[in-house]
Amino acid sequence: MKSLMIIADGLGGRPGDVDGRTCLQVAETPEIDDLLSRRGSAGLMDPIKPGIRPGSDTAHLSLFGYDPYEYYTGRGVFEAAGIGMEVTENDVCFRTNFATLDSDGKISDRRAGRISEGQDELEKALSDLKSKKYPEVEVRFKRSTEHRGALCFAGPDLGGNVTPTDPHELGIRMPKAKGRDEKSERTADILNEVTDEASEILQNHPLNMERKEMGKLPANAIMARGAATYPDLPLVKERYGISASVVAAGALYIGVARIIGMEFKQAEGATGTVDSNILNKVKLALKQLEKGQDLVFLHFKGTDNASHDHDAEGKINFIEKIDRTFGWLNDNVDWDRTHLSFAGDHTTPIKYGGHVADPVPAMLAGPNVRKDRVEVFDEFSCANGGLGRFSGNLLPITLGYSNQLKKFGA
Amino acid sequence: MKSLMIIADGLGGRPGDVDGRTCLQVAETPEIDDLLSRRGSAGLMDPIKPGIRPGSDTAHLSLFGYDPYEYYTGRGVFEAAGIGMEVTENDVCFRTNFATLDSDGKISDRRAGRISEGQDELEKALSDLKSKKYPEVEVRFKRSTEHRGALCFAGPDLGGNVTPTDPHELGIRMPKAKGRDEKSERTADILNEVTDEASEILQNHPLNMERKEMGKLPANAIMARGAATYPDLPLVKERYGISASVVAAGALYIGVARIIGMEFKQAEGATGTVDSNILNKVKLALKQLEKGQDLVFLHFKGTDNASHDHDAEGKINFIEKIDRTFGWLNDNVDWDRTHLSFAGDHTTPIKYGGHVADPVPAMLAGPNVRKDRVEVFDEFSCANGGLGRFSGNLLPITLGYSNQLKKFGA
Repeated sequence: MKSLMIIADGLGGRPGDVDGRTCLQVAETPEIDDLLSRRGSAGLMDPIKPGIRPGSDTAHLSLFGYDPYEYYTGRGVFEAAGIGMEVTENDVCFRTNFATLDSDGKISDRRAGRISEGQDELEKALSDLKSKKYPEVEVRFKRSTEHRGALCFAGPDLGGNVTPTDPHELGIRMPKAKGRDEKSERTADILNEVTDEASEILQNHPLNMERKEMGKLPANAIMARGAATYPDLPLVKERYGISASVVAAGALYIGVARIIGMEFKQAEGATGTVDSNILNKVKLALKQLEKGQDLVFLHFKGTDNASHDHDAEGKINFIEKIDRTFGWLNDNVDWDRTHLSFAGDHTTPIKYGGHVADPVPAMLAGPNVRKDRVEVFDEFSCANGGLGRFSGNLLPITLGYSNQLKKFGA
Repeated sequence: MKSLMIIADGLGGRPGDVDGRTCLQVAETPEIDDLLSRRGSAGLMDPIKPGIRPGSDTAHLSLFGYDPYEYYTGRGVFEAAGIGMEVTENDVCFRTNFATLDSDGKISDRRAGRISEGQDELEKALSDLKSKKYPEVEVRFKRSTEHRGALCFAGPDLGGNVTPTDPHELGIRMPKAKGRDEKSERTADILNEVTDEASEILQNHPLNMERKEMGKLPANAIMARGAATYPDLPLVKERYGISASVVAAGALYIGVARIIGMEFKQAEGATGTVDSNILNKVKLALKQLEKGQDLVFLHFKGTDNASHDHDAEGKINFIEKIDRTFGWLNDNVDWDRTHLSFAGDHTTPIKYGGHVADPVPAMLAGPNVRKDRVEVFDEFSCANGGLGRFSGNLLPITLGYSNQLKKFGA
């Protein structure tokens, strides 16, 4: 049998979203409800556990069955893996921003005016970054979307307890990175040296001269945060004995999935925003199952983007867009041989606009599921479902129904 | 937003309490039910986890989000902190009883006839207690209610694995304390020396001469139990980033709350019994929130006292007394900005009269709660509530709804 695990990021809501109802309640979701009614069972899932407010990275580790209290080292390594860098046990990685420093060296924009062109040239200009003090350490920088990027150091005796050089504040200088232990002090040292060098290179780069002339903010610095060593965890192949692919567009989700050993598949038109061509993603996911993968993890990001923007209408529209892809799934999945799980990775209420600890609606559908009486997929109905309330582990739970789990014990 | 967490000790019951119904079912609780119906969601909570029979100390640690398997060292330190002793990392603490030894040195009463006057004089007589073998160790004794008290040793190389000198038996001599490791052997040594010295002092104390003349049992010994080192745990400020107060009367609950960094507030007329002025406690709790505390933990003890006494009527009356304070809360809480949680800390059935592992009814009320359809707050209705079944962690869960939690991960 096959397993398809679908996560709509930040799907969960609160009564305050739209006049006492959540966006998921307001959205018309006939296809999702139809699947749940005919083949499914519902429940409430605490992404990590009750009373823990999840990050996106820790939530996904937990959904994949990896206790984040045991395995989480920080976000940087997932971001780097997510934008296609090859990271290994020797790496310490950071998320970065292109930023703008004014003539006094103070931060005037954390995103270099959301720079949208020329980043490839800047990346190229930074391709020879090196630490003079620690020449044995390999330095790699890669841009991703807009101002975003990642910076990795590979070498001996590096540590991940490094404070960020992005203060999330304007009008001050970039703070120097500090390490909280000996290896991390070394790493902070390298980071400070390398980002100074990067500033010098960027300051005089022709592209930035051009930007200034055009009245745009120059991308004359890179700021780093989310320091992380490579997490010591078993791959899905080893842990569950399965092959798996990830179909996603957000770097972080691709990164977490790649690091636990899923193969990344790029769908045409997938953007990680509300405009994404998510039907293409769904089709690609099913294709991966047909091609022989045991499990596909499919991630939609738009729900969370709209929630962070306090945009109830956008969230409702995106949920309805997801619902239409469920129409296609209802018609095209081989329902005799497939189990599908669908849930949020955390709750992001419209008014609050950030992650909260409230549990998320979750459902499982397929031939081995004990169908319950829930007919509507939302935060309230799911509380009365056959799955009850459970904590994370959606991936192994889904595998379980598809008879894809290894036995613990004899 | 603000959080108010209310615990009614031993609130949970069993069908055998009163002709097939629990005391909570029999009690008239219109105000609690009104709050639940209008603003709340209900569930069943296992204080620690299913199948674990909780103590009062371990249950409260778990409710506060501190895994007792990780943090619990014993009861003595909470009792000492709860009666106002300043305890630190250097301390090993014991709960004590004033007891009566007969002329052969055998225990004739474990509570010195529930001594109710003169304990201050006895405490004073014991103020110079000292170990001759270990003069560097500081010895402090403090009485509390009736025969109760606490004994603390502060110094280097002390251990908490010390057997009690209170055998919970009459007609035998006080057993010598023993240590289960080197540091604890030292500590047992000191305890034996100090309690011998205490007996000598008390034996000849004028108050005890008087008591004998009046036909009362002399308080001529102190017996110790519940040895505990100071637990190595993060304060609520550090763990959750919040400020908190405790309004309670029972020493143990005050002690646990103080040790995790809550500020103790004494309500006028609060006694920790069924006669307590609990409306004053509720008013003080709300005042603390208004004064700027992020969370107040409010504890009612009477439900448990009545349960231990097999007194169904007393328990029902006390539950109805609590219900009346909910009437005041319904009218006076700022419901746009406050989340309230209410639960037992464990189940204490009337017939059994001790703590059992059965889950307790729990509810959450406030603007961000996903209201369910439960309209009656009892052990049966709550099983169908929107909160499902969860284990401990009521404090961080409550904070979550009030947007007071720090994020784990990014």
